[in-house]
Amino acid sequence: MDQQTSLLDRLFETGLLIETGVEGLYGRSGRFENIITRFEALIDTIGSGDGAEPIRFPPGMNRAHFEGSGYMKSFPQLAGTVHSFCGNELDHMNLLQCMEAGDDWTKGQAGTDIVLTPAACYPLYPTVAKRGALPEGGGLFDLQSYCFRHEPSNDPARMQLFRMREYVRMGTPDQVMAFRNDWMERGKALMASVGLPVEIDVANDPFFGRAGRMMKNNQRDQNLKFELLIPITSTTKPTACMSFNYHQDHFGKGWEISTAGGEVAHSACVGFGLERIALALLHHHGLDIDKWPNPVRKTLGF
Amino acid sequence: MDQQTSLLDRLFETGLLIETGVEGLYGRSGRFENIITRFEALIDTIGSGDGAEPIRFPPGMNRAHFEGSGYMKSFPQLAGTVHSFCGNELDHMNLLQCMEAGDDWTKGQAGTDIVLTPAACYPLYPTVAKRGALPEGGGLFDLQSYCFRHEPSNDPARMQLFRMREYVRMGTPDQVMAFRNDWMERGKALMASVGLPVEIDVANDPFFGRAGRMMKNNQRDQNLKFELLIPITSTTKPTACMSFNYHQDHFGKGWEISTAGGEVAHSACVGFGLERIALALLHHHGLDIDKWPNPVRKTLGF
Repeated sequence: MDQQTSLLDRLFETGLLIETGVEGLYGRSGRFENIITRFEALIDTIGSGDGAEPIRFPPGMNRAHFEGSGYMKSFPQLAGTVHSFCGNELDHMNLLQCMEAGDDWTKGQAGTDIVLTPAACYPLYPTVAKRGALPEGGGLFDLQSYCFRHEPSNDPARMQLFRMREYVRMGTPDQVMAFRNDWMERGKALMASVGLPVEIDVANDPFFGRAGRMMKNNQRDQNLKFELLIPITSTTKPTACMSFNYHQDHFGKGWEISTAGGEVAHSACVGFGLERIALALLHHHGLDIDKWPNPVRKTLGF
Repeated sequence: MDQQTSLLDRLFETGLLIETGVEGLYGRSGRFENIITRFEALIDTIGSGDGAEPIRFPPGMNRAHFEGSGYMKSFPQLAGTVHSFCGNELDHMNLLQCMEAGDDWTKGQAGTDIVLTPAACYPLYPTVAKRGALPEGGGLFDLQSYCFRHEPSNDPARMQLFRMREYVRMGTPDQVMAFRNDWMERGKALMASVGLPVEIDVANDPFFGRAGRMMKNNQRDQNLKFELLIPITSTTKPTACMSFNYHQDHFGKGWEISTAGGEVAHSACVGFGLERIALALLHHHGLDIDKWPNPVRKTLGF
């Protein structure tokens, strides 16, 4: 915990991140953003030859699609729904009085059609489903968006609003597994090229509750999720900076996505936690970017 | 209305924007994003000589700061609060049953400390206030973020989640007015350089209710808000693609920001509606970016 607080404090002191008064919600300085911009350009150089279709969804998604995804079954504690005031002028006066009195005025807000995006790929599946069967060779998509997870923490590597870059592959099990294996190798090489020590390990998502414990075990037993880990705020428990997820036919079944051959599509995704990667670079090479090792600076185009 | 629908339909058909099933919530294709990236680079070339401090806030802000801003007094209908599930396993089972039955499960969500950012500059004022008095010469900031406004519409120029680029100036009334006047001239020249017809007109914010009508009139009478208008979805009512706002001492007083000389700081901002500008370019030069006029392509670096 001390190491977490101390990295966060130093990030505030140097102005790399900006305090907002809410744990896990920070402003980013130009210097911090520059790291992410350059790292994303590096991802592009590796991924661009694959011909992925770039799509950028906003940080919110259709609530009906979110409900259809099953996210609330597995991770209810992390989701963020968007609510608005839908009343008249009298309701408005009451709201302001409630706020003035320091009471919880948000109780009067009504759920909208929008939920904050929990992972960059969630809006993709219903989009692809609408297009009909996948083309011969399957589908490959390049995504990035701000994502929300309600887990306030003083660990700077656990933000409530953070950016996730993702490649998503859809097709036959073979296509999808080959994609995931490729990216595990690429991920290791990519991180080595910027001087970061990594290990890859099997992992599980933070499924909710007692029933979730079984899902965690299943996910691990079947090797569905791997994470690329880099020490950031703790040396005993390194932080997941990339993840490599094989969904089997979960999204293909749920959204009725089929391969060109008419089978239920399998899917996999590789995700980059962009803020975490920036933090890993800052932790390992120091908070003064001008003094980072020359090979690292060169690789990132500084 | 027909023209709105037809532009939106054509944007879907060409794949420039991607339907999500919610009005005002769209995916962006790589081609659409490319327009915004290039236009932002153009803004940079104009603004970069001024030495603005770049800060990027995430699309959500501290609810306490939001409450302090007075936004709910003026625009309650537009705000989006973020709510989460905070219950136990039994609550979770009830939530899932509620969702299964098609009832409104969002009623059980609890307000978090986060509100969606209504305009890129809202998180800035409390941030600057914490630093103490402004330096000699005042402050100048460069912001961009996704913003939320709850106003579902089939007008593609009225999105619920959209990006706003902003420069914000803080200082003496003279400094702040000079900044705003400069940017009105720069804005006109900028839009002319990409072949867009503009007019600048006095404007008002969409203050809520009957009391809001007086605030609208005051704002207009005092010339506090100007908009740069470009025809997009309607020829009779062109769309605001930039706005130039003089806040007088509203934020300086509210957040206790003072000039180096100890006076209450005045502030002004210039905002670019990035999606609207992309739509204006597509409407005026056509949906096939490869066929845009050569001078426009050259200015944008295509």
